Amino acid sequence: PKSFRVVVLHGDGIGPEIVPQATRVLEAISEASSDVELILDPRDFGGCAIDKYGDPLPEETLEACKRADAILMGSIGGPKWGPTAKVRPEPGLLRLRQELGLYANVRPASFASDSLVSYSPLKAEVAKGVNIIVVRELIGGLYYGPREEQGDGNSAYDTMVYSVAEVERITRVAAQIALNANPPLMIHSIDKANVLASSRLWRKVVTETLTKEYPQIKFQHQFVDTAAMNIVGSPRKLNGVVLTENLFGDILSDEASIIPGSLGLLPSASLTDAPTSPSDPLFRPTPGLYEPIHGSAPDIAGKGIANPVGTILSAALLLRYSLGLEKEAQAVEAAVRKVLDDEDIGGYGLKTADLGGKATTAELGDKVVEVL
Amino acid sequence: PKSFRVVVLHGDGIGPEIVPQATRVLEAISEASSDVELILDPRDFGGCAIDKYGDPLPEETLEACKRADAILMGSIGGPKWGPTAKVRPEPGLLRLRQELGLYANVRPASFASDSLVSYSPLKAEVAKGVNIIVVRELIGGLYYGPREEQGDGNSAYDTMVYSVAEVERITRVAAQIALNANPPLMIHSIDKANVLASSRLWRKVVTETLTKEYPQIKFQHQFVDTAAMNIVGSPRKLNGVVLTENLFGDILSDEASIIPGSLGLLPSASLTDAPTSPSDPLFRPTPGLYEPIHGSAPDIAGKGIANPVGTILSAALLLRYSLGLEKEAQAVEAAVRKVLDDEDIGGYGLKTADLGGKATTAELGDKVVEVL
Ligand SMILES: CC(C)[C@H](C(=O)O)[C@@H](O)C(=O)O
Ligand SMILES: CC(C)[C@H](C(=O)O)[C@@H](O)C(=O)O
Repeated sequence: PKSFRVVVLHGDGIGPEIVPQATRVLEAISEASSDVELILDPRDFGGCAIDKYGDPLPEETLEACKRADAILMGSIGGPKWGPTAKVRPEPGLLRLRQELGLYANVRPASFASDSLVSYSPLKAEVAKGVNIIVVRELIGGLYYGPREEQGDGNSAYDTMVYSVAEVERITRVAAQIALNANPPLMIHSIDKANVLASSRLWRKVVTETLTKEYPQIKFQHQFVDTAAMNIVGSPRKLNGVVLTENLFGDILSDEASIIPGSLGLLPSASLTDAPTSPSDPLFRPTPGLYEPIHGSAPDIAGKGIANPVGTILSAALLLRYSLGLEKEAQAVEAAVRKVLDDEDIGGYGLKTADLGGKATTAELGDKVVEVL
Repeated sequence: PKSFRVVVLHGDGIGPEIVPQATRVLEAISEASSDVELILDPRDFGGCAIDKYGDPLPEETLEACKRADAILMGSIGGPKWGPTAKVRPEPGLLRLRQELGLYANVRPASFASDSLVSYSPLKAEVAKGVNIIVVRELIGGLYYGPREEQGDGNSAYDTMVYSVAEVERITRVAAQIALNANPPLMIHSIDKANVLASSRLWRKVVTETLTKEYPQIKFQHQFVDTAAMNIVGSPRKLNGVVLTENLFGDILSDEASIIPGSLGLLPSASLTDAPTSPSDPLFRPTPGLYEPIHGSAPDIAGKGIANPVGTILSAALLLRYSLGLEKEAQAVEAAVRKVLDDEDIGGYGLKTADLGGKATTAELGDKVVEVL
């Protein structure tokens, strides 16, 4: 059997509760298959690593991540390592992204099942049918450009810088994801080209790359302020792939993630390269880091009531992009939909507290494994 | 009588239709008062100025604006001067802001009347009671920092730079606006201090300025991605003054403006200094530029159906901040509420097409003047 090494970073807060539900799902898949062997390799990362080693990203965790086929992560941070703490978890995450070259962050915002439309803060007629995949550049722009905390003792600056090569490669990720859908998705490239030089470069390179290399994909450009309006006002206008730089992607993907009603439902993938499709004869897996989009939720940690669906769906993305197990990924997604929806399960599907239900974290995991 | 000079920039698209409804309101006020004389001074600005002079901001327009007590503007731009045009209107707007020192952009997002909650794309229980005033720094940050279109022929950059003095003065504007309300509003300062050096300076200076100079004002800090979530998911959490830098303010104020249902209803003010309260013995008026937040809407231009409410409410802000006529400002706001709402007017209030009504631009203006 083919063997894959998956590093598991439980992290802080509810992380140690939700991640095991996702690793159970992965184990169930490897047990059911004679072709696939999974080696799970748990490591310390985040606040818990600060407590143990004084460093959110200890060297041996980083090394294990570099050797892995994929990384499954819970969530990091908490009040103990808050804004005034000396050592904070965030720099560890930013360093991990850069060291691994995780330049492409992929975040779908869509309804795991139709029955969830009523949980959206948007009116049903505005929210229904929303199907957005944000592709965010993750190791460039203002996050990693030259900065100065105290220029002349009196000012500070950050630099938003992009090279042609950086824009080209993230454009190709968006294009591959658009093409993996049938029919191909539209690409909405977001920038502020009416003001920023880096956005004008972005717009030019996106246009050239898509026109030359992907003539079959439809695309448009939109200013970031207009996009921020549309996501709330008419989100279906952005259905397809929303392609954008690091900071705009941070803001817009968080905004979009509110549409499907509970943050607890949404997965994310951070990839080192454009995914190919498993049906592609040239398929090669893409190492990546997979995590739910929500935080470590210290207020409900330890109670066993956190929603594991975002993490389980992240494991599905891991199967898809890093292991090339598309059929298995779809099976997990279908199982989640069934558990959330099926009238035979708990009357109206099984739901955790964030969706107004009473199911526990473990019950959700049990049911998904059972349905699988 | 005290005489005030107001420059009027009709601009493009629906600008020449909506602005006259607001100047009629201003004229009605000055006619009714023996203390106030208004001199309206119309000038060319935007696309129409490009057509006439090849420059969106002709020198004589700029000079007139510099001499004015206040500027009332419609909206600029249109397909004729789009992204590929050689001369575009936006640089004219950015230059006008900088030349006049309009460093404080004030944009309320609240319901002009309770009956409008049903027009929001958000569910009524999420939208009702939202009362946010965005105070955006307008002539600093990425918009005006050093930039390079083509560094080494292969990359481009922009710089987000803030000085202590720039952050202090915009914090004081937010504080004055918070204090002008009774009880004082809470301030939510938005940054990305977990990543950006300029945001760490921002957070430090906001904290120090508010703590030292305005101990009576409550405030909190919030990351920009979290704020983008909250505006959609639980906007009342941000009720009060949302204080933020230029680009974050561009994105968040546009996002927030979707909550009240129609962009056509919302005014804005761009000020050269912190407003004082007219009841303050030290009151001094603040020169400023006032405009609705919507664009030039070329698709409905010339039809006489655009909503003039955003421009009329901008004129109310002009009365308040630049002329110190608080009572008159409140009278205009009350008249607008009455016209939109009153059952005796058109059955269920008078509404333009953007709110599903049949009233024309002029009918709205007529009614507001009549009610006044
Ligand atoms: C924690 C923070 C540095 C991070 C980011 O801004 O990238 C987070 O908001 C995210 O989106 O993963
Ligand atoms: C037109 C553009 C340059 C401008 C800005 O980004 O400031 C606009 O979006 C605004 O908010 O007034």
